[in-house]
Amino acid sequence: MRHGGDLISYKKYYEGELIDFSSNINPLGFPEGLEKELINSLSHMTSYPDIKYRCLKSSISKYLNCDMENVVVGNGAVDIIDNFTQIYPRIIVILPSFSEYEERALIHNKEVIRLKYKEDFTIDLDSIEKVVNHKALLVLGNPNNPTGLRIERETLIKLYEIVKQKEGYLLLDEAFYEFCPVDYDSIEIFKKDSYKNIGIIRAATKFFGLPGIRLGYACVSKDIKEKYEKVELPWSVNALADRVGRYIFKCKDYIKKSQDYMERERNFLLGRLAKIQGIRPYPTHSNYILIKLLKWKEDYVFEFFLKRGLIIRKCSSFNGLDNTYIRVAIKDRNSNIKLIETFKELEEII
Amino acid sequence: MRHGGDLISYKKYYEGELIDFSSNINPLGFPEGLEKELINSLSHMTSYPDIKYRCLKSSISKYLNCDMENVVVGNGAVDIIDNFTQIYPRIIVILPSFSEYEERALIHNKEVIRLKYKEDFTIDLDSIEKVVNHKALLVLGNPNNPTGLRIERETLIKLYEIVKQKEGYLLLDEAFYEFCPVDYDSIEIFKKDSYKNIGIIRAATKFFGLPGIRLGYACVSKDIKEKYEKVELPWSVNALADRVGRYIFKCKDYIKKSQDYMERERNFLLGRLAKIQGIRPYPTHSNYILIKLLKWKEDYVFEFFLKRGLIIRKCSSFNGLDNTYIRVAIKDRNSNIKLIETFKELEEII
Repeated sequence: MRHGGDLISYKKYYEGELIDFSSNINPLGFPEGLEKELINSLSHMTSYPDIKYRCLKSSISKYLNCDMENVVVGNGAVDIIDNFTQIYPRIIVILPSFSEYEERALIHNKEVIRLKYKEDFTIDLDSIEKVVNHKALLVLGNPNNPTGLRIERETLIKLYEIVKQKEGYLLLDEAFYEFCPVDYDSIEIFKKDSYKNIGIIRAATKFFGLPGIRLGYACVSKDIKEKYEKVELPWSVNALADRVGRYIFKCKDYIKKSQDYMERERNFLLGRLAKIQGIRPYPTHSNYILIKLLKWKEDYVFEFFLKRGLIIRKCSSFNGLDNTYIRVAIKDRNSNIKLIETFKELEEII
Repeated sequence: MRHGGDLISYKKYYEGELIDFSSNINPLGFPEGLEKELINSLSHMTSYPDIKYRCLKSSISKYLNCDMENVVVGNGAVDIIDNFTQIYPRIIVILPSFSEYEERALIHNKEVIRLKYKEDFTIDLDSIEKVVNHKALLVLGNPNNPTGLRIERETLIKLYEIVKQKEGYLLLDEAFYEFCPVDYDSIEIFKKDSYKNIGIIRAATKFFGLPGIRLGYACVSKDIKEKYEKVELPWSVNALADRVGRYIFKCKDYIKKSQDYMERERNFLLGRLAKIQGIRPYPTHSNYILIKLLKWKEDYVFEFFLKRGLIIRKCSSFNGLDNTYIRVAIKDRNSNIKLIETFKELEEII
């Protein structure tokens, strides 16, 4: 199982509604008013989406506070990652991270270099410096998945200087950006360099609660945009996803409310998990928590939760983690309580 | 301009509603009841689509009358073509044809072999036999775009035998299949061979009037399906497109009505175009007509029609055609009359 969210495969094992802690989606759902907007937009199914996505890119650029000429779009963030791995011959990944970074590179027969995060899941700049060159695309989650950590501002700037000096390319996957406490905005930081040697991916999938819509976007330099548009599939974003993207970024109240909600639930869940025996939850900036299992293997814990109607994410499918890690999403309060209670039940059988 | 349908680029040249003869979409629009179905499905945006698209594939397999295990899906037919060009090292195209066959192959650094249709746009089996081998993917439109012709049944069977004997792969792009007069069904013909060495692509885009939805599907052998699923992007079909695909194939009345409508309008338009001086319309089985310009160049004719609110398709962007060809879609009766009248105006200035 390379990905979370595959509830259909598990429905037969539990009578009743499964709670999905395996995919990391905004517990508040999508912005208010979006359904109405889409109902009024259904006639757009009869036309091709604008092949240049002009209105969509304009809407994204206002949200990101960058120039529209710096925006590219894709069929989810993974499509953007896929297009980038086609542009560069050497792909550097740091493990553990989202498996598709490596998968897409291998599919396109690219050289893959696998580095490791340090034990606390921060970045080792020296190891990166040794392998970056003008052919290299370094793909980094920020925050990283499944570890949940943002790169510290100073580290990111140092990393960027290394990549730039070596003429490589730094691709930040910031699909979970809006969930994180406000520290810095990569799009703001690298604007003065016109995003030379750096691209920043974001998406509607996680924060806007729309994994079914498949809308990813990125801020890149104009020369890379040209290369990107040569490899991208025509009409990669569906016409309704295009409409979604013209609507959601204006929903400022929803954005603020979601951020506050997540901060509260993150503190709540981290606090409660810290008291459970037999597990070690890692600190996180994001809307999911990586957990080291001290007493069990992932399969046992997965089955234990499944029997109680909860789907968690086993982590041995992340290259770089073994079968003693799981990942859980931070959800609404009731679900989070259910999670804690299930951990408490588990705790009793040490 | 590699593709039709880009109306936004031309809006500034004409005050009033443009009529789009450049993209070939069912003039009856999408099936009745689809809007209601989607309105009831909007909550599915909050989940990832089933990564295996089980219900969607079941619905497609019933429509195609094949086994669900033979079905693959994609983000439009072009996504399926793209995935196939990743599987084979040598791509054979016959010109003129849909430009993406060649483009996608070049993007993936594949060897591209370009053959030509005969003068009447039928297939030259001898030329194909010389270049097909076990590494080769032969991509053929059936009906072909922009020529509009179906491959004759006997020719197709001979072609298949050649490809099979050479251990190559024949990929038929049948995105316009349902518009054509009933002659044969490739999916039926090659069922007895379990689709060994052959794949048949179809799509919701053209016939079901849903270019904005991006839903392509194909019938392939089980071993190729395995290879396909290794290269395809996860969640390539949006959750609403998934719902569309579970609905539209059941709309038998719409399908029949669309076919009858197209047959009537095709006969009407071909009959009227035949009387226009200075052009030579080619016979077509599909919902578009390739036209040879005997007196003008495509740019002149394009401007002439644009000034009158009609967008036609210039054909020099099809490798294998020069700037003396245009393509027009067959639309509703009023639009078709407008097209004929504009040709009559053009005729007067010979």
